Amino acid sequence: METTIKDIARICGVAVSTVSRAINNHPDINEETKVLIMQAVQDYHYIPNNSARNLKRSESNTIAVLIKGIGNPFFSNIMKVFEKEIQKKKYSFLLHRVEEHEDEIEVALQLEKEKRLKGIVFLGGYFLQSKERLSKLNIPYILSTGGVSDGTEKESLSYVSVDDYKESYKIVDYLCKLGHKRIATIAAPPMDENIGKLRLKGYRSALKDNGIEPEQDLICYNEDETDQIFSMEYGYKAAKKLLDAGVFFTAIFAISDSIAIGAAKAIFDSGKHVPEDYSIAGFDGIDYAKYYQPSITTIQQPIEDMATETIRILFDLIDGKKNTVGKIFSGELVVGQSTKVL
Amino acid sequence: METTIKDIARICGVAVSTVSRAINNHPDINEETKVLIMQAVQDYHYIPNNSARNLKRSESNTIAVLIKGIGNPFFSNIMKVFEKEIQKKKYSFLLHRVEEHEDEIEVALQLEKEKRLKGIVFLGGYFLQSKERLSKLNIPYILSTGGVSDGTEKESLSYVSVDDYKESYKIVDYLCKLGHKRIATIAAPPMDENIGKLRLKGYRSALKDNGIEPEQDLICYNEDETDQIFSMEYGYKAAKKLLDAGVFFTAIFAISDSIAIGAAKAIFDSGKHVPEDYSIAGFDGIDYAKYYQPSITTIQQPIEDMATETIRILFDLIDGKKNTVGKIFSGELVVGQSTKVL
Repeated sequence: METTIKDIARICGVAVSTVSRAINNHPDINEETKVLIMQAVQDYHYIPNNSARNLKRSESNTIAVLIKGIGNPFFSNIMKVFEKEIQKKKYSFLLHRVEEHEDEIEVALQLEKEKRLKGIVFLGGYFLQSKERLSKLNIPYILSTGGVSDGTEKESLSYVSVDDYKESYKIVDYLCKLGHKRIATIAAPPMDENIGKLRLKGYRSALKDNGIEPEQDLICYNEDETDQIFSMEYGYKAAKKLLDAGVFFTAIFAISDSIAIGAAKAIFDSGKHVPEDYSIAGFDGIDYAKYYQPSITTIQQPIEDMATETIRILFDLIDGKKNTVGKIFSGELVVGQSTKVL
Repeated sequence: METTIKDIARICGVAVSTVSRAINNHPDINEETKVLIMQAVQDYHYIPNNSARNLKRSESNTIAVLIKGIGNPFFSNIMKVFEKEIQKKKYSFLLHRVEEHEDEIEVALQLEKEKRLKGIVFLGGYFLQSKERLSKLNIPYILSTGGVSDGTEKESLSYVSVDDYKESYKIVDYLCKLGHKRIATIAAPPMDENIGKLRLKGYRSALKDNGIEPEQDLICYNEDETDQIFSMEYGYKAAKKLLDAGVFFTAIFAISDSIAIGAAKAIFDSGKHVPEDYSIAGFDGIDYAKYYQPSITTIQQPIEDMATETIRILFDLIDGKKNTVGKIFSGELVVGQSTKVL
């Protein structure tokens, strides 16, 4: 016969509610009583309903979102949708920040072991991962808006992103068509192997196709490792460096809107104006770019659709409906007030 | 003798690793085999190590953060700190969005029942809760930056916030001292019972103490319920309404920086300038206010300290070290480029 909670209560000489409190880790219980009860639970092989249920339901219905760059407002809109979609499915949303220098696969493996996760979303971050390393993960996962770089074997991955190369090409080409020939870029540091690299590649190709040879002293980044790459602070410092260097340019392509806003502010602080003295273009399409004065010309990523699709694909994987799926969304060139014809 | 995983494997005629996969809800297992194994687990009272361990450790080491207004960039910085501090303690961070119309106590009670939470942080939201309702919660909780309004019995709560009344008074008083007499405010809708109400109260008092009678037609809000209260869109529409109404004013106090940025953009779009035509002041001290052109005069909340203290107090409560603790932080008036002497 199966041991019940009443048996445990009788054996320990306590009320059923006390056993329940012990099992549920309730703070209102004497520590000695709790030890006694937990010992009896063990000895008499009592499986708490709770725990039995958890095997199937509660704890396992958790999706972990591993995020690099948690302060990025681009991600905060995505997380909003994630949270909503995951909640709709009656799943829990476990948020886990990954440090810049941390390996997200290691972190994921650790989480998978400790929690009973049903799936993982990797949000942002580098993703130069080999098939072999990824295959260590035992649960479905998807890479969202992280950029799938050249080194990755794409067929082994589920991902949702824009084509960072193509979209960067599009906006830099637009700057060229406005007549700009001296176009600087605020890029990610050279060791970046993710979207920073892809967006820089798009910049180079667009210049070349417009008959402009990319110049090393117009490719600018901020060497201060304490600044987050896609932040306004990063953009401010990089643009200031560019201005202080005295190199001639008429436009900046910043690889994110936050960087673009930081760069614009550096220009204003130097006594110059946007777009009168310098045109500025960004990437992402965050709300702050739209409300900036001047509003920032940018590539609008379809954030809501991408986030919704991320969760939809992940649940398809969880339900065993599909193998890996990669989906590339189109960005839209949104012309703001920050760029002008030269 | 206690049933082991080996016993279950022997009984079912499968490998130990298969039992493990069944218990851990691994996708790579035949459904029938899984049912067979789970039946044996039940029949022979096998308590998976995993599950036994979970009773004490894993699942219970979870802090839930209930957030109203998940898209607010003010919260994204706070969450960054929460996540870091919670991770430091080797706890998990469960993020749960509460809808504007939802009752966060109900949501908290539900989560407490479903998950083995160790603690709850309420981030933002209304908090007109009676002591009786709050006492239904069986686990420690804290209200962070949500504003503790007049109706709440403060002694029954742990909270971390600024004094919204006092800080609003401070910045509106500053506008008065600059010589402004026709100061509009973009406030929360009248039904708001939280920080919106407190900040409006500070506005009224500061005006009165400067010999200015608050006027109803200078108290503006956006009636579109689809807009989030503290958003740029909310500020943009409210300011546009104010400008279209043709009422005379020389300054705006917006109850958040995002509202202030939205209001500034509405002014620029109408062909006027900030601060030449209108001074604008905000509240919060988000990074975007600093990088806006012009930078926004605001009340800087000590976000990092407040977030760190929230988690510190919560863990003190969890460790049983203290009774409820309320801590009020001081904000700082940061004078930007968006306000000028009249």
